[in-house]
Amino acid sequence: MKIIPPGSIIGILGGGQLGRMTALAAAKLGYKTHIYAQSSDEPACKVTPFVTLGEFSDTARLKEFASKVDVVTLEWENVPLAALDAVASVCAVHPGANVLKTTQDRVLEKSFAKNLGLGVPEFRAVKDLDGLKAALKQIGAPAVLKTACGGYDGKGQAIIRKDSDAETAWAELKTDHAILEGFVKFSQEISVIVARRADGTMKAFTPVENRHKNGILDETHVPAHISLDVQKQAQHMAETLATKLGVIGLLAVEMFVTDNGVLMNEMAPRPHNSGHWTMDFCATSQFEQLVRAICGLSLGDTTPRQPCMMKNLIGDDAGAWEKILKEPGASLHLYGKRDAKPGRKMGHVNLPLKK
Amino acid sequence: MKIIPPGSIIGILGGGQLGRMTALAAAKLGYKTHIYAQSSDEPACKVTPFVTLGEFSDTARLKEFASKVDVVTLEWENVPLAALDAVASVCAVHPGANVLKTTQDRVLEKSFAKNLGLGVPEFRAVKDLDGLKAALKQIGAPAVLKTACGGYDGKGQAIIRKDSDAETAWAELKTDHAILEGFVKFSQEISVIVARRADGTMKAFTPVENRHKNGILDETHVPAHISLDVQKQAQHMAETLATKLGVIGLLAVEMFVTDNGVLMNEMAPRPHNSGHWTMDFCATSQFEQLVRAICGLSLGDTTPRQPCMMKNLIGDDAGAWEKILKEPGASLHLYGKRDAKPGRKMGHVNLPLKK
Repeated sequence: MKIIPPGSIIGILGGGQLGRMTALAAAKLGYKTHIYAQSSDEPACKVTPFVTLGEFSDTARLKEFASKVDVVTLEWENVPLAALDAVASVCAVHPGANVLKTTQDRVLEKSFAKNLGLGVPEFRAVKDLDGLKAALKQIGAPAVLKTACGGYDGKGQAIIRKDSDAETAWAELKTDHAILEGFVKFSQEISVIVARRADGTMKAFTPVENRHKNGILDETHVPAHISLDVQKQAQHMAETLATKLGVIGLLAVEMFVTDNGVLMNEMAPRPHNSGHWTMDFCATSQFEQLVRAICGLSLGDTTPRQPCMMKNLIGDDAGAWEKILKEPGASLHLYGKRDAKPGRKMGHVNLPLKK
Repeated sequence: MKIIPPGSIIGILGGGQLGRMTALAAAKLGYKTHIYAQSSDEPACKVTPFVTLGEFSDTARLKEFASKVDVVTLEWENVPLAALDAVASVCAVHPGANVLKTTQDRVLEKSFAKNLGLGVPEFRAVKDLDGLKAALKQIGAPAVLKTACGGYDGKGQAIIRKDSDAETAWAELKTDHAILEGFVKFSQEISVIVARRADGTMKAFTPVENRHKNGILDETHVPAHISLDVQKQAQHMAETLATKLGVIGLLAVEMFVTDNGVLMNEMAPRPHNSGHWTMDFCATSQFEQLVRAICGLSLGDTTPRQPCMMKNLIGDDAGAWEKILKEPGASLHLYGKRDAKPGRKMGHVNLPLKK
């Protein structure tokens, strides 16, 4: 396994807040960071002098970027596979196209987990309205129709409460590649983030409970209040997926806790919003763990220092920074975004909870 | 009091590791950072796209820098006063020349504390060899001769064990402005870092114990094992000095614990090596506290999360990073310096101690 020592340059595809926080964690370990982004206004471009601006379709520019760094990772799971191939022809990319081709497509993603014997909600691939109607007959309403590729934070989804909703839902999604998923009766939504190195060494963060609002993560509570058995199932699921996908870096797996065990909802091969608590309440943050994993360093201690929670600051929420700064034990993180548009993740706050 | 909100640009005079870590803390709160440094190789220049290269004697360049930022702080206490004046003619600098003119001179510094009724070691200002001999007669050997300005990490000091050492010591120091200090019999060296805003609001970090090796800080232990009375003396000393100096930002005060109470050893109006533990074991690090103080934000929670220690990585020590990364609970910080010269601070590690 190749070791990329401190002092080296880590390339990051994408300039969002996840790239920004990865760059800050890389700096903590003495690395330099080079960001590939579309605009110098993006959050990650403000924390390093090394930035290449370009489109993800510009393979020449991507290769130029790759020639200037020692290893590449990504903060956006929808990096086009052709872009990854271009980068990989010059420099190692972790995680690579082998992982992203699966995680970019909800049908492939769920099929992959199902074929490994892991629990998943009932699902059918859907290509047209007739297919949707047939799938709906098999799965039954209520169900959720999602674009297979590119949706996030509740976007690209439509709930089908009764059979007659099918046409509207299909028209709304404007796609020819979708997935219909049965409604899951769950007691909790949890997630596990696992880090994996090239040699197969892994370390998982503790399962956490996620609470959503308007389809966007609102709060993460640490640890999730789940039985030891559910904990083990969740960790097993994340580690199995990371291993079988061949992830080098991080894999975040969102899951439902149900009466029939743990079901995989979705996964992302990058730092995850539900892991932001680690920045203040673990010896190793998820961002530092990513750096360690892709550079072949020892994976760090993931023990939570104490019960805690993370609250996202969405849109105007970030305007409350003065109040947040006054809260005992609170740690505020702002991403340096200029405009607080509705639904936009502007920052988060980590808070201790009573032991 | 003027509030400089997140999103603004903080200027930092100096490009060393203290500037680097201040920039990383500023980024956490959504600020941008602009570094004034002499070379782009300096650690702080690697964590922001905004850098002005120039000498500290170049007032035009300093003013140009000041015109691009919303507030200025410093990471080096020996910024020439003329440089501070140049910057201050364009943009607020915290702490300002009013503070640095005292803390840059050991004679003024000790006199200032003494005049406030605070404990200091016996000292005399010394201008020539005859003055040294006279001072030595009054204070008695052993004593320490120090250049009044510019010394650090044990540099610019000579120990005088017996009267006949005076000539060699004087020749060694090559200065006409020195201080002779009586040897202090102390049980511990401690320090307190206090943050102060323009409106006089203050918050101190807990007193910590410092252990030196070869005149350089080696370890900080948190908290210092001292009586409540000594704690109060130490905190009172730091707060009195910060208030009377009119510090806006941080003031770090190093002290000796003696049978005759707490004596002031030296002070620095900037983040301090003995406060690096706060990066992992406080809700608010000293660097974030500096940002909050100069920007007029609420000062953050300074409660230590648990007993802990900081170990400096000097010169080749940093080569042990692989071993350090394996230690449970350890948090490694490297400053991105290329050459591990002897005596050079390359990084530090924060470690939990048993409760």
